Amino acid sequence: MEGREISKAVITRLPRYYRYLGELMESGVERISSNELSAQMKVTASQIRQDLNNFGGFGQQGYGYNVKYLYEEIGKILGIDRKHSMIIIGAGNLGQAIANYANFEKRGFVIKGMFDINPRLIGLVVRGIEIRSVDELEEFIEANHIQMAALTIPKARAYEIADRLVAAGVNAIWNFAHVDLNVPDDVVVENVHLSESLMRLSYRVSRLQDEKKRKELKKAK
Amino acid sequence: MEGREISKAVITRLPRYYRYLGELMESGVERISSNELSAQMKVTASQIRQDLNNFGGFGQQGYGYNVKYLYEEIGKILGIDRKHSMIIIGAGNLGQAIANYANFEKRGFVIKGMFDINPRLIGLVVRGIEIRSVDELEEFIEANHIQMAALTIPKARAYEIADRLVAAGVNAIWNFAHVDLNVPDDVVVENVHLSESLMRLSYRVSRLQDEKKRKELKKAK
Repeated sequence: MEGREISKAVITRLPRYYRYLGELMESGVERISSNELSAQMKVTASQIRQDLNNFGGFGQQGYGYNVKYLYEEIGKILGIDRKHSMIIIGAGNLGQAIANYANFEKRGFVIKGMFDINPRLIGLVVRGIEIRSVDELEEFIEANHIQMAALTIPKARAYEIADRLVAAGVNAIWNFAHVDLNVPDDVVVENVHLSESLMRLSYRVSRLQDEKKRKELKKAK
Repeated sequence: MEGREISKAVITRLPRYYRYLGELMESGVERISSNELSAQMKVTASQIRQDLNNFGGFGQQGYGYNVKYLYEEIGKILGIDRKHSMIIIGAGNLGQAIANYANFEKRGFVIKGMFDINPRLIGLVVRGIEIRSVDELEEFIEANHIQMAALTIPKARAYEIADRLVAAGVNAIWNFAHVDLNVPDDVVVENVHLSESLMRLSYRVSRLQDEKKRKELKKAK
């Protein structure tokens, strides 16, 4: 694995493989062919073989893939076998939703603290995690060796907080604020822009509506 | 515009253009060249010209793009000039985060109702929206001509609820449940799989850590 470059497209697809393999394991399935996996995931079998070949041909002719082995290998590639210490900045609904999602912790993302500027939230405890003032941010990051931060705050303060996170040593930001952050090359940002996702849905449903209208007009003629 | 096919990659980028153009408008900028936009968005100017040419060359040589015009045209393409009646299934933190995001409403997504199975939530009101029992789902969809539903429930019940939504006439699902829904061709689904996003972040930060370790080892030698 070391040093091998895997294409971004494959990486984007890996978490989905991981999810399906996890579900197969839960159902007691020990091995699966690329054709069976193809039928379940609605991806061509050749795509699956190509993708999984990136990891050194885990499949065997006439036997298929060993589900548990493949699941664990993909987990390692995704870094899920490691522990990531995480904080959440913004203890509103979205921040609390993340804090409450126990599955993240199962996968190695350990939420160590939450931060907010709202005095009504500071001091509250969500799933055992205390909400602190952002004034304590730097001190907390250093004391707890935090690498990862979820940013669930409005865009107005996102730049400033991101700068502070980076200066304090955080090297991965899960960004829900609706801005593109400027960070140094050795910091990674993964964006979740909900309103952009909603607009893509809007685009597709609008095309669908146009199509329906066209068909009805044709009928009426 | 009618009938013209725009590539999926361009559509994926449109909401980001829309966001930048909206911010330019707010700052009072009336026109912008592809080079200036390129510097701000960190996309090549030629990519910008190519993307925006899809909509019939809004730019003028030596003048640049008319910000307001382009903003509105992209809004139309994205269907944001239309009203979309939406419901939210799952009134937990994530559902409430969506309900509380007033910007969605500004863009034509009108949240008409929220639904949950938890009796402690039913009857509560979030930003003027009452949380109802899922038992009332079909009746409500019909009475309020709902087209769109956000699904913020655990995966165990997602298939069943999606089937009910589709049968009741919903044709667009914003799916936050961690499953791939099976829907007919005339229903669109946009997935937001938070745990997959987190795994991509984990992958990238793990590669970064490996890189650092390699460098340190080299130094130590």
